[in-house]
Amino acid sequence: MPTPAPILATLTAAPTPGAAMHALVARLFPLGRSLTGPGVRETLAVLREYLPGLRVHEVPSGTPALDWTVPAEWIIRDAWVKNAAGERLIDFRQHNLHVLQYSTPVHGWFSRAELDEHLFSLPEQPELIPYRTSYYQPNWGFCLSHRQREQLQDEYYEVCIDSTLDEAGSLTYGELVLPGASEEEVLLSCHCCHPSLANDNLSGLAVAVFLAQELARQPRRYTYRFVFGPGTIGAIVWLSRHRDTVGHIRHGLVLTLLGGPGGFTYKQSRRATAEVDRTAALVLRDFGSPYAVRPWLPYGYDERQYCSPGFNLPVGCLSRTPFGEFTEYHTSADNLEFVRPEQLAESLRLAEALCTALERNYTYRNLSPYGEPQLGRRGLYKGVGGGQEGADWQMALLWLLNLSDGSRSLLDVAEQSGLALPLLHRAASALEGVGLLQPL
Amino acid sequence: MPTPAPILATLTAAPTPGAAMHALVARLFPLGRSLTGPGVRETLAVLREYLPGLRVHEVPSGTPALDWTVPAEWIIRDAWVKNAAGERLIDFRQHNLHVLQYSTPVHGWFSRAELDEHLFSLPEQPELIPYRTSYYQPNWGFCLSHRQREQLQDEYYEVCIDSTLDEAGSLTYGELVLPGASEEEVLLSCHCCHPSLANDNLSGLAVAVFLAQELARQPRRYTYRFVFGPGTIGAIVWLSRHRDTVGHIRHGLVLTLLGGPGGFTYKQSRRATAEVDRTAALVLRDFGSPYAVRPWLPYGYDERQYCSPGFNLPVGCLSRTPFGEFTEYHTSADNLEFVRPEQLAESLRLAEALCTALERNYTYRNLSPYGEPQLGRRGLYKGVGGGQEGADWQMALLWLLNLSDGSRSLLDVAEQSGLALPLLHRAASALEGVGLLQPL
Amino acid sequence: MPTPAPILATLTAAPTPGAAMHALVARLFPLGRSLTGPGVRETLAVLREYLPGLRVHEVPSGTPALDWTVPAEWIIRDAWVKNAAGERLIDFRQHNLHVLQYSTPVHGWFSRAELDEHLFSLPEQPELIPYRTSYYQPNWGFCLSHRQREQLQDEYYEVCIDSTLDEAGSLTYGELVLPGASEEEVLLSCHCCHPSLANDNLSGLAVAVFLAQELARQPRRYTYRFVFGPGTIGAIVWLSRHRDTVGHIRHGLVLTLLGGPGGFTYKQSRRATAEVDRTAALVLRDFGSPYAVRPWLPYGYDERQYCSPGFNLPVGCLSRTPFGEFTEYHTSADNLEFVRPEQLAESLRLAEALCTALERNYTYRNLSPYGEPQLGRRGLYKGVGGGQEGADWQMALLWLLNLSDGSRSLLDVAEQSGLALPLLHRAASALEGVGLLQPL
Repeated sequence: MPTPAPILATLTAAPTPGAAMHALVARLFPLGRSLTGPGVRETLAVLREYLPGLRVHEVPSGTPALDWTVPAEWIIRDAWVKNAAGERLIDFRQHNLHVLQYSTPVHGWFSRAELDEHLFSLPEQPELIPYRTSYYQPNWGFCLSHRQREQLQDEYYEVCIDSTLDEAGSLTYGELVLPGASEEEVLLSCHCCHPSLANDNLSGLAVAVFLAQELARQPRRYTYRFVFGPGTIGAIVWLSRHRDTVGHIRHGLVLTLLGGPGGFTYKQSRRATAEVDRTAALVLRDFGSPYAVRPWLPYGYDERQYCSPGFNLPVGCLSRTPFGEFTEYHTSADNLEFVRPEQLAESLRLAEALCTALERNYTYRNLSPYGEPQLGRRGLYKGVGGGQEGADWQMALLWLLNLSDGSRSLLDVAEQSGLALPLLHRAASALEGVGLLQPL
Repeated sequence: MPTPAPILATLTAAPTPGAAMHALVARLFPLGRSLTGPGVRETLAVLREYLPGLRVHEVPSGTPALDWTVPAEWIIRDAWVKNAAGERLIDFRQHNLHVLQYSTPVHGWFSRAELDEHLFSLPEQPELIPYRTSYYQPNWGFCLSHRQREQLQDEYYEVCIDSTLDEAGSLTYGELVLPGASEEEVLLSCHCCHPSLANDNLSGLAVAVFLAQELARQPRRYTYRFVFGPGTIGAIVWLSRHRDTVGHIRHGLVLTLLGGPGGFTYKQSRRATAEVDRTAALVLRDFGSPYAVRPWLPYGYDERQYCSPGFNLPVGCLSRTPFGEFTEYHTSADNLEFVRPEQLAESLRLAEALCTALERNYTYRNLSPYGEPQLGRRGLYKGVGGGQEGADWQMALLWLLNLSDGSRSLLDVAEQSGLALPLLHRAASALEGVGLLQPL
Repeated sequence: MPTPAPILATLTAAPTPGAAMHALVARLFPLGRSLTGPGVRETLAVLREYLPGLRVHEVPSGTPALDWTVPAEWIIRDAWVKNAAGERLIDFRQHNLHVLQYSTPVHGWFSRAELDEHLFSLPEQPELIPYRTSYYQPNWGFCLSHRQREQLQDEYYEVCIDSTLDEAGSLTYGELVLPGASEEEVLLSCHCCHPSLANDNLSGLAVAVFLAQELARQPRRYTYRFVFGPGTIGAIVWLSRHRDTVGHIRHGLVLTLLGGPGGFTYKQSRRATAEVDRTAALVLRDFGSPYAVRPWLPYGYDERQYCSPGFNLPVGCLSRTPFGEFTEYHTSADNLEFVRPEQLAESLRLAEALCTALERNYTYRNLSPYGEPQLGRRGLYKGVGGGQEGADWQMALLWLLNLSDGSRSLLDVAEQSGLALPLLHRAASALEGVGLLQPL
């Protein structure tokens, strides 16, 4: 068993977890994240202030990873479109969504028509700047509001993208391991490649960071592994370096889009009925907020990689409103106003409840299985009978005794009884305390 | 094979089964049943008049039984609360619900406040006397209407409960065995521990008694075992004395609450898909009365004991409106008006139909399985074809021939075809008669 | 592998498949088909013009077949009811529904009451002649409109049925085999015993003939076997002669009632989840016309024989509105107006789609199962990312890669993904083309 890495919360004056998470999101928002490059490093450096045990890994460009190759590192210094008067009409320094991610360097004069082929805007959301990428096809471009695009009426523009695609660079990802009593792992994965988009996915980073702090303070049955990497290629690189150990992963979650409005969404893993899938459905059932459980779909976030058929890991995806289903998605409107402290805080509580449910999902055996044991003489039963009391507590005791034949976990009991897991946890402890239940 | 016990119907002039059952309920109503004591013995003595083969068993107080111990026998002679004028304000002789079951003896003067801690009433049903017990926690008390309780305005009352908790007493239960062609058993269990409550459970006793009389008159595939004992501890005692033979139980039913209004309710055994569970659902489907099938719940009547995980017997519970779901439940309103002859009679017919369905649930093999056999030359098919006749009889023949591949019972055929079991019984007999079906 | 039989479409001038099929139905309509006899032979002779490889088989009357015996051949030459004036009031030459099928010969004078016992009419559809048979019980009779029946007010009638029940005759059926790459077979079966009824089942014959022509022009994975025989006894005779080879049948369909109005109906085989059952449900799901999938029922057409428990072949039944559910069923209103070219053509397209789906239902293995393969460098992925494109094509690629672990067929992928089979066929070909998928 490795020694746990020391974890220190550096946060000092934040009044509530929600406000503290929002402060983290706000601090990360301006950093110029992309698939690779300095912005990812700066982001992980901030996370290390919260999670000193976080290790940052650099993987050289050109390294093969499963079916892929680590791309050149993209360094963007400046990007603009000027008019003849030299005014910066489109200015990367004003918003880092303005440049097409992974734009190749360019400098010169272009006619309006030539420039237009490199512009991206949203006619139906004319005030918003879209987020666009061209990671694997060399291209350059600018993203801008459609309103601004329509104002570009000059005949020629000076265009500059001061970028480098550094073949000698590297891809950066971060990993935090919180060792538990068992080598079996819970994987928690967030993508950290999006620039100034608050919900997608600074919200996921913030929830993961605060969840890690909370878990670090507790005894842990499972080992928890947090991975912060760029979307797709990050998960692929990570998987390529852990092919021999991914078998330890018993449960996993991709955390994303957890700061916006809307109910919760749990997307099932490819296995559909993995323990994490059933646990998420149960915890959401009893959590008290609107939610939906959706079936597996091979499109979305890094669960695509974890659930590819060769790995088929039990990794679901936890979010609020899913990608593409809110109008702010992948636009400049996914900003610090859109992500709210109370929404982040509620997401954190849900993630904690889910981890608690996984931690405590034991299978018990009733040690007095012939007839009901007499609860009264053990102080676990009400006094005067004949009334219609059937309180949840009594039912929890009876369900646990009745179903605990060694083949059913607390998850099974919660599903069949309709009782909430926290109540069953308490009742199971009480029954274990009087020697009626024994965990297998 | 043991010799069948002789069974004699002593009933002579009752005009209908319903009236005869109601007469039995009325005769048992005033007897002072409790968990133990003379009232149970008197009750079983009446049942023996109907079922001479019924054997009465006495189990000494203090006998261990599974996780429990047989309690002291409770003998109640009198109980009253008098005012200073010596008037019996609360009088056990007027209604045997007035005393808290298993009250310890007491005699003396009590202030109104002291007495009030020992009173039980129903503020929301102010005219009714509730039924309350304190079997396993020593206590004494009176049950009374809330209206009467509010009239107790004197400062002091004389209180007397003339009871004995006899450590040298015994617990009493009755058992009737109707041997069948097979050692495999059908268990029918009723609790007989409730005092003057007509539906709970004199109705169950009456239906069981008349069902036993009916079964006794017929050839039987199964051995039928009727158990009449006090709730919970009775089943536990019975199970503790039959641990080696409960494996013979193929099907079981707890019979209770069968005389009141409302549709039928079948509560599934812990197995949920046992033959008795599926049969009950089917018989109810075709019986023509409103009904509901409910999932297993580890709360209720003695199915709790039979379905404890160590035994896990296929025992469901048949009732009309379940406990706690009618306002008369466990009050003085569960009386001889509440239980109606026609409701008892319908319940008996249903119980008979269920036993018939279990008796006749054979698995057949089609002896001419290649193509349809030519029914016409065997006199089983209509003459002129081409019309749209598809009468249930023809369909029953075709379904039986088509599904009887040796892997499907009549129950399976009834479930898949939607046809009623009595029709399938007749059609199976016809096909067996012409050599097309053979029971396995 | 036997040499394929030569197939020649003899049709020359038909402008559309629907019109060509309707022309075939019109040509067959007047022929006097019955269970046996010249009408069946004439019908099969016409089909041979379309399908030169069709082989016609004669099975002598009296031949045992499973539980049955091939009946005497019925030859009907003339049938009439005359009044005293010698007028042919009911005249077989006017409509061959007028005679009860398999009528025994009769000639003589009958009172109105005597005659009436041999008349069949439809009081609720007074203008229509019903279709009635008495194959296995010797009888004679006339079918007529109820209106006409009411006009028969004379006291005596001369009755003549000039028929023969030839014990030295034979039962006739036709069979066409289109050999495929595999010995595994698709069985397509139509009954050809009904006289002038256009939907039941000249529509089925027409769709089968044109489907066979189409399949004959294509490479075939499966061997296709078309059987055209009289209902019930035809299938029984065929099965009795192929008991050793029916194990080759992987999929089967009874084709009937395919020319009338109304949505499509697929009736599942006895297996309920056979590949043909699931394929039919999927093809109908995506075909764009109203449809219903119905569970197995041991009543209907020759699926009754193919799905008898001894054979239990995976044979479903494809129709439009099922028998008995349209008012024209088994009456003179099931005529050439009721069957429409466009309905026949749509049915043919559906049958072709179903065969295509069966042909192409391969199970693939993803050859790059660890993480998603990089589709971009293989030219299979869109360029600029970040937008919300998730077009069906991309989804088809992702679903196929994700699910193709060697345990799931295209059918599984289509069921789980909700994507249409033709799209998945194209996507699977594209992925196979770049070496990412391999059929097992």
